[in-house]
Amino acid sequence: MIKGCQNECTGGGCSGETAKHVTDSFKASDLIITPATTFKEKPDPSGLVFGTVFTDNMLTIEWSLASGWEKPYIKPLENLSLHPASSSLHYAIELFEGMKAYRGVDGKIRLFRPTLNMDRMARSARRTTLPSFDQNELLECILKLVEVEKEWVPYSTAASLYIRPTLIGTEPSLGVKKPTKALLYVILSPVGPYFGSGSFNPISLWADPKYVRAWKGGTGDCKMGGNYGSAIYAQQEALEFGCQQVLWLYGEDHQITEVGTMNLFLYWINEDGENELATPPLDGIILPGVTRQSILDLARSWGEFKVSERYITMSDLTAALEEDRVKEMFGAGTACIVCPISKILYKGKDLHIPTMENGPELATRFLNKLSDIQYGREDSDWTVLVS
Amino acid sequence: MIKGCQNECTGGGCSGETAKHVTDSFKASDLIITPATTFKEKPDPSGLVFGTVFTDNMLTIEWSLASGWEKPYIKPLENLSLHPASSSLHYAIELFEGMKAYRGVDGKIRLFRPTLNMDRMARSARRTTLPSFDQNELLECILKLVEVEKEWVPYSTAASLYIRPTLIGTEPSLGVKKPTKALLYVILSPVGPYFGSGSFNPISLWADPKYVRAWKGGTGDCKMGGNYGSAIYAQQEALEFGCQQVLWLYGEDHQITEVGTMNLFLYWINEDGENELATPPLDGIILPGVTRQSILDLARSWGEFKVSERYITMSDLTAALEEDRVKEMFGAGTACIVCPISKILYKGKDLHIPTMENGPELATRFLNKLSDIQYGREDSDWTVLVS
Repeated sequence: MIKGCQNECTGGGCSGETAKHVTDSFKASDLIITPATTFKEKPDPSGLVFGTVFTDNMLTIEWSLASGWEKPYIKPLENLSLHPASSSLHYAIELFEGMKAYRGVDGKIRLFRPTLNMDRMARSARRTTLPSFDQNELLECILKLVEVEKEWVPYSTAASLYIRPTLIGTEPSLGVKKPTKALLYVILSPVGPYFGSGSFNPISLWADPKYVRAWKGGTGDCKMGGNYGSAIYAQQEALEFGCQQVLWLYGEDHQITEVGTMNLFLYWINEDGENELATPPLDGIILPGVTRQSILDLARSWGEFKVSERYITMSDLTAALEEDRVKEMFGAGTACIVCPISKILYKGKDLHIPTMENGPELATRFLNKLSDIQYGREDSDWTVLVS
Repeated sequence: MIKGCQNECTGGGCSGETAKHVTDSFKASDLIITPATTFKEKPDPSGLVFGTVFTDNMLTIEWSLASGWEKPYIKPLENLSLHPASSSLHYAIELFEGMKAYRGVDGKIRLFRPTLNMDRMARSARRTTLPSFDQNELLECILKLVEVEKEWVPYSTAASLYIRPTLIGTEPSLGVKKPTKALLYVILSPVGPYFGSGSFNPISLWADPKYVRAWKGGTGDCKMGGNYGSAIYAQQEALEFGCQQVLWLYGEDHQITEVGTMNLFLYWINEDGENELATPPLDGIILPGVTRQSILDLARSWGEFKVSERYITMSDLTAALEEDRVKEMFGAGTACIVCPISKILYKGKDLHIPTMENGPELATRFLNKLSDIQYGREDSDWTVLVS
């Protein structure tokens, strides 16, 4: 569909006849597929380090203000050739998504709620002033790429093929402005089980208010590069304190927000004596995770305990720990689904979180339920079949 | 100098005998210079759009955790070949600097306080977990690059050669972590006068607390890509409101922090009836600009009025406007030196700032003084000669 105008006309007066028209999305039906003819050896997924091995092919789609979206290509994975002034390299005009393809017990390959990723990517694009696109067309292109690379989807229900859609500004000039050139690309990486042994390894967290991941009026609710580059320094400091991840706090009252690059859940008996599964609300500083949403949706459908998007402060947590009201605490994300938390280092003290002593019953239930859906042991309209 | 260890040993126990040693900085004396043999036409600087034209050569220096810094190269400007998983493209592990070379009235080419840029670049590298380097060696390499490109330094005291040092993570994997590969490069771009007519064109600002540039615990005091990509959306909205730049506010009390990508100065009669030049303090959310520092240094050396690094809120400003206590307000940065402000759109109302009615006397004095130093009309130890 040619719609035009969106990137060229500011204000009214664009009749559509006199304005230069640009394609407002690429189309999967225009895909030009010239796949690799030499193939890398596929690694044993059990020994993989996350995101280090890539498949043979990639998807690329170029955009310019002058011409709109070009045709999408599936072609051999290769280095990008970027002007050294590219706006992604100077001003972090860039965003990404993370999702997975799973080979089910029935042999079919599935994606898990990919439209949520496409929606979030569109929101990130808007916030970054990168071009918009038809989300369904991109999903179709990604499904095609996974189909081309289907032998790279691990034959394992403990591994998967990680999908990394990326959109970067390629404006070859140094003005800090909305880019006039961009590149959308997708690369694939087989990934092994997050917990090597097949059982949970709980993590320890370092909570110090001196580093803040995101703030009101910023971009913490979008999957933009700038949210991550600024976080690595704190992650290094967490490691120096013998902790594995950062527990990101916010505000004077030390609200608990996220853990590392995951959303955070607390299962506890709340201040009113109710069993409650709680996670911070989407108030602008929280990334709206697909696993987060799925855990909320499942828990609400079960109707067995209170499910809340609410603020939790460190003093709420320490009070609950003293009163033995905490059952489980875990991170939630695409990489691990759920990741139990056993310790928080806060104000020089180790807070023991009794997640493992309590099973973790609820975290395990979410893990099993979501895995059953992803690997096709259970039918669900949350999955999309590849081809 | 071989020092080793810094990037490989965590904790103690690194004897220097068993550890693998890496070079802790490149050296200018190792420069390998293979300049371009074909040359682009040099444009008329008066018609240039900022950062759109680049010179014939660039400086590049590669780093890896395994081998440390490689030798520096000056070679023809070319596209970078980057793995599509490069950490700069996904996680904004990237930083830059901005400085200029000026052709003086005596024909000599000068840089202005470049060690301040080198110091800030080193701080940005630390915050981004990118490798450290010897700042003097980088400055020597940059001086050599400018010397190679000396014909690109405009023969004009209204133009200059913009220098853009850049350091990016080139780690070719998707883990969110300290990169094991990086690339430092420098590109050059001739730039014309900021104010086309040679006289000041004041700008209008849009001040809305809904977008926040930087926050305590973040990276606003470093020149990292993520600070800029997140700002462009607000800049677009400012344009929609008929304003040229964003006035960035902070906190419940709407502190005035920066303007667009510049530091901000207010020259006024303060609450105590004193003539005061004020700019926000370096409390973590303000970029420590070289022009900012130079204006403070000059004003303090003059000793004619109070010079303060202090908080200024929008209510401080509106009260002062009502009481006719505001003399001048201007942005300060490498691009324009000083940039007068004539209007702020705040809470739906246009606040008129009488900067132009007052000369702007002080802004003009800073502009002239700094230009005199940069173009060699006045001797100063703030300048460094090229070759």
